[in-house]
Amino acid sequence: MSDAPRTIRKLTGNFLEDFRPGQVFRHKGGKTVTEGLFTVFTEFAMTSNPLAKNARYARAYGFDGLVCPPGLTMLICFSQTVEDISENARANLEYIDMRFGAPLYVGDTIEVETKVLNVRPSSSRPNLGIVHVQSTARKDDGSVVMTWQRKVQVYKRDDAAELHPGEEAPDQIACDLWLPTYDAGAKYAEMAHLSSPDSYFEDFEPNTLIEHSRGRTVTDEHIQMTAILDNTSQVHCNQYMIDLDPKQYVGGQLIIFGGIPFTLCLGLSSPDVGDNALGDLCYPTGKHTAPLFAGDTVFASTLVRGKRDYPGRDDLGIVETTLLGHKFVREEGATNDDAPAGWKKVAIFELEREIAVKRRSHYGS
Amino acid sequence: MSDAPRTIRKLTGNFLEDFRPGQVFRHKGGKTVTEGLFTVFTEFAMTSNPLAKNARYARAYGFDGLVCPPGLTMLICFSQTVEDISENARANLEYIDMRFGAPLYVGDTIEVETKVLNVRPSSSRPNLGIVHVQSTARKDDGSVVMTWQRKVQVYKRDDAAELHPGEEAPDQIACDLWLPTYDAGAKYAEMAHLSSPDSYFEDFEPNTLIEHSRGRTVTDEHIQMTAILDNTSQVHCNQYMIDLDPKQYVGGQLIIFGGIPFTLCLGLSSPDVGDNALGDLCYPTGKHTAPLFAGDTVFASTLVRGKRDYPGRDDLGIVETTLLGHKFVREEGATNDDAPAGWKKVAIFELEREIAVKRRSHYGS
Amino acid sequence: MSDAPRTIRKLTGNFLEDFRPGQVFRHKGGKTVTEGLFTVFTEFAMTSNPLAKNARYARAYGFDGLVCPPGLTMLICFSQTVEDISENARANLEYIDMRFGAPLYVGDTIEVETKVLNVRPSSSRPNLGIVHVQSTARKDDGSVVMTWQRKVQVYKRDDAAELHPGEEAPDQIACDLWLPTYDAGAKYAEMAHLSSPDSYFEDFEPNTLIEHSRGRTVTDEHIQMTAILDNTSQVHCNQYMIDLDPKQYVGGQLIIFGGIPFTLCLGLSSPDVGDNALGDLCYPTGKHTAPLFAGDTVFASTLVRGKRDYPGRDDLGIVETTLLGHKFVREEGATNDDAPAGWKKVAIFELEREIAVKRRSHYGS
Repeated sequence: MSDAPRTIRKLTGNFLEDFRPGQVFRHKGGKTVTEGLFTVFTEFAMTSNPLAKNARYARAYGFDGLVCPPGLTMLICFSQTVEDISENARANLEYIDMRFGAPLYVGDTIEVETKVLNVRPSSSRPNLGIVHVQSTARKDDGSVVMTWQRKVQVYKRDDAAELHPGEEAPDQIACDLWLPTYDAGAKYAEMAHLSSPDSYFEDFEPNTLIEHSRGRTVTDEHIQMTAILDNTSQVHCNQYMIDLDPKQYVGGQLIIFGGIPFTLCLGLSSPDVGDNALGDLCYPTGKHTAPLFAGDTVFASTLVRGKRDYPGRDDLGIVETTLLGHKFVREEGATNDDAPAGWKKVAIFELEREIAVKRRSHYGS
Repeated sequence: MSDAPRTIRKLTGNFLEDFRPGQVFRHKGGKTVTEGLFTVFTEFAMTSNPLAKNARYARAYGFDGLVCPPGLTMLICFSQTVEDISENARANLEYIDMRFGAPLYVGDTIEVETKVLNVRPSSSRPNLGIVHVQSTARKDDGSVVMTWQRKVQVYKRDDAAELHPGEEAPDQIACDLWLPTYDAGAKYAEMAHLSSPDSYFEDFEPNTLIEHSRGRTVTDEHIQMTAILDNTSQVHCNQYMIDLDPKQYVGGQLIIFGGIPFTLCLGLSSPDVGDNALGDLCYPTGKHTAPLFAGDTVFASTLVRGKRDYPGRDDLGIVETTLLGHKFVREEGATNDDAPAGWKKVAIFELEREIAVKRRSHYGS
Repeated sequence: MSDAPRTIRKLTGNFLEDFRPGQVFRHKGGKTVTEGLFTVFTEFAMTSNPLAKNARYARAYGFDGLVCPPGLTMLICFSQTVEDISENARANLEYIDMRFGAPLYVGDTIEVETKVLNVRPSSSRPNLGIVHVQSTARKDDGSVVMTWQRKVQVYKRDDAAELHPGEEAPDQIACDLWLPTYDAGAKYAEMAHLSSPDSYFEDFEPNTLIEHSRGRTVTDEHIQMTAILDNTSQVHCNQYMIDLDPKQYVGGQLIIFGGIPFTLCLGLSSPDVGDNALGDLCYPTGKHTAPLFAGDTVFASTLVRGKRDYPGRDDLGIVETTLLGHKFVREEGATNDDAPAGWKKVAIFELEREIAVKRRSHYGS
């Protein structure tokens, strides 16, 4: 008869006091983009840019095939960092200097590294603090797909633990948007009916707020979608953990992974803003401003802040926008200007977004 | 300090008064069939024909690989027309002369065109009317995958608007079912165990009603499935819109996209009717007769109406059927002949369906 | 005017009295593994072994590409047997001598055969009994992917029917785990950061119970997942059938297909036990000990029972484990040692599991 077994419980993820400025994580796993992943997310988000829907069109434009839209690229790359950085997080606070490089295709494999920049305690809550990190995703061939910084609110394992001091500067990562060459002999105009007719560079007027017409209700599908991304954070998928101590968690219920409204707002804006983009250049800042739960319906709008020429590319321009996401919640007796009676508009997400947009002069019909 | 931004709201889709007989839409987007899309739908519907499950079998029969079953082909092609034709629809009323041509494979890209045939007001509801259209889907190589007509009930933007008069004849579209050549030397019989043994041409007897044994409960998965098809109609996915004015919408809740019971009934009938089909030729007429909501369980039956030889193909025959879909709803105190006590049987869908079926004499074991 | 049609109802699946010892089923359909199927299941289960996530890594190890994790291989092969063996089952009771052979890749097609070993009545319930079968799955090239026995509790069509007597011995099926050759010149250590650092052969100590940290709530997603596998058993997907006679069914509600906690528990254990496995050799015994329903959260632990050398492979060892799955259910006033106050721990699944694990001496950094 054997003795009772020794029991161990391997903790996954790091807590606030584990992070050291300068520390580098080479994240486990890596991720090959399959057609299963591509389809679930591209189309969940109602992305309408034909580069992500129509391989004939994408190849005619000089891409190798269907191109991951920027929201999906972000989800795939970001999620690789979750186990090490945010498995024990309460919430993701801020995205900074998120930039895109090489296009991501089905069949590509990405691997991701993260460097810790600094770690700060919360001023009001002794069991929490903020980690500031910089992450970079590369393909098999070494090309950079994305690089970004983020600040994330992480729990402490031990409220009394000391935090590692120090401040590390972000690395300079070369990451410029790859663009196919403009081919004066190509018959772009013959494909112009496949994208929206009024979202060329010439159509954008600074200081315009475009309210996108569609909404999308998110169901508990979010649990599976989050798992498919390898995002293992327990606040998205472990209902029992929430039930044991609901007050400890945002909203006292499973919270939807922030990457989901991130990619959904990008998709909802696509017919009006993204259909004639060849890519997103960068998201200088971004943040979640309210949590999202199963059953909420998401809407988006885009503030066009400015526009400028694309250096070295007469066929393109850069549109400077802010993408805004919101939902409506019932509020007894409410009479708000920006919502129907009995409802309140709640901002959930905002993102500064610079987009490489085709000019009608070169691509339109 | 900048001025308050100008706000615009781009409407998507057309309203009743926007349609003009003779008008042609070359729909945006187009769609490449991925393995993600193929798997989600083929298998959601419980399709059992090995042509859609077993690539070894499909290739041995002379196809290039797994073949989209007709319900999936219809969903992919049909959905491309939604934004222009039925984003602002209340309900799809009728399918007419739906015919199949080239087989659709993973990797193929389809693009779709629609011609408006006529526009009529509703006799009883001033804010609604009916648009009659003809659509055709083609592959990259120009081959026709499907052509069909449909009538759809669409909202008016302005109840007082005049409708465009006129009547356009449908185009004559060449669209005949592509079939692999019968190879007398092929070892079909060695694969006969992979399809059902009692669904060859010889097995069908006119004036027989086959009640298919399986049922399938549809969950709120329908929201994601509809998005994956690029079907952007808001009545399927925007719960907030419904909540604002439930009486305006069928059933006062999110309604399941009609393509879902369409493909599900085809799948449920598959073991008894479709397992030994090489393809569906045409659906002369079809219509939805009741809405479907999340939580409903779908059942199907097939009325065999007739059978005839397949011109030029001794190895095949044509089976003429009507596919019927139904569900059961609770009804206090009900004692109906065709349902258990306390339940009512509700017809949801019917479709005239002509199928190209193998003869046991040529393919059986 | 035609006569009323003759109505027939084709029953699917067999009932207890239909099974004969020695009878062989060559199952219908067969199944080609698509990227859609691969992604939905691998990642649903939170599998973290890079062989199933990262094609670069899998190829560097000598595999042809992403490898189906053992839980997915089992689900695909097992489900092919459902229509013939367990469409009319109440529950799956036991897995016996489940062994793995050739790796399963995207694009492979499997076909499955089952032999009936014996059929026994239930001692207490006249409408039920147990069928004992042996099944084997092969690829197009004839290689054996899996072979296993199972015992399943099946309903009788007619309570009074006689059962077929007899006892058939299982066939001897050659099925040894395929392993890539160890290449002394390969740079395994340079990829060591992609798998967990503490799950090499050297790390396992017999008589240790590892409690895996993650939990995963299963939603009604299970209905679609089960259909995607071709598992047609009505107790997983036909809510109407349950509603008509809830007492007849386990828990009076849709029960989750046992393959789902099977693969989920394997996935939850992956970071601690499976990350450095090259494959699972065999599952000598396994069983479900409680049903799972939508909304339950699944947890897993692994008892390390022993370890031994891998014959002929210095680079590997065999770890002998028992995988245990559990959930927690609310119980008013409960004060159990192994659960928080007000909750009860319920064992749902256990599986003897022998794993081929890399040695740090050969693969570690």
